[in-house]
Amino acid sequence: MENIFTDEYFMKKALQEAEMAFDKGEIPVGAIVVIDNKVIARSHNLTELLNDVTAHAEMQAITSAANFLGGKYLKDCTLYVTLEPCQMCAGALYWSQITKIVYGASDENRGFSKLGTQLHPKTKVVSGVLENECAILMRAFFRTKR
Amino acid sequence: MENIFTDEYFMKKALQEAEMAFDKGEIPVGAIVVIDNKVIARSHNLTELLNDVTAHAEMQAITSAANFLGGKYLKDCTLYVTLEPCQMCAGALYWSQITKIVYGASDENRGFSKLGTQLHPKTKVVSGVLENECAILMRAFFRTKR
Repeated sequence: MENIFTDEYFMKKALQEAEMAFDKGEIPVGAIVVIDNKVIARSHNLTELLNDVTAHAEMQAITSAANFLGGKYLKDCTLYVTLEPCQMCAGALYWSQITKIVYGASDENRGFSKLGTQLHPKTKVVSGVLENECAILMRAFFRTKR
Repeated sequence: MENIFTDEYFMKKALQEAEMAFDKGEIPVGAIVVIDNKVIARSHNLTELLNDVTAHAEMQAITSAANFLGGKYLKDCTLYVTLEPCQMCAGALYWSQITKIVYGASDENRGFSKLGTQLHPKTKVVSGVLENECAILMRAFFRTKR
């Protein structure tokens, strides 16, 4: 039987979150955390609504997943996020010791990979999953702001 | 008349916060945010109590100060923190566009300056204020953990 729980499967759920951010006038980034093919956290960017630069989708997802697990380390967890994490979020992911990060669109200016933010040695990274879909939503958002 | 509102004056208040963290069994880091010589946010590390790697003193101080100001940018604000910010906190400070960061003890392993985290071009940094006092508290904490 085919495994339906692919990276694309979960990234679609992160994209649904990004669309919720879009509808609220937020930069459309969504994130989920998965353990054993189960979604344990969902979030989307809320920096405008909360007036808080720390309210990125990933930060909320990390807090929420740790709350679910009852411990601060995200062992055996995968974060799916529609946009490449920034320095802040990558720095938080470093502390979380998360097992895997999967992101959609790259962020050439403020993404952690260009800026050289250190991840935990235990963390694997996969990029470019549903990259087009994630990037199209971002471009559509910024087009509404012109 | 002598100006009592020196960096040392405010760092002492951050140190009081660090001592509160120490008393709770948390890595003793404290932070305050100041605007026009007025303290608008106080916080200390709560990562253990909250089971949350994002609950560093600085992160809470940024959220709290933005809440006080009613806007997410920390223009004309100074953050005083007893330990050099990590990648996550420096990344959050980047987004906040804070005017000035003053820290006490350096963190040779996980501090942002060694790891090359980018701050906002508007942000000035002062280091080493009450460095000994801040470092002594950290060492005392880790001695209790041996």
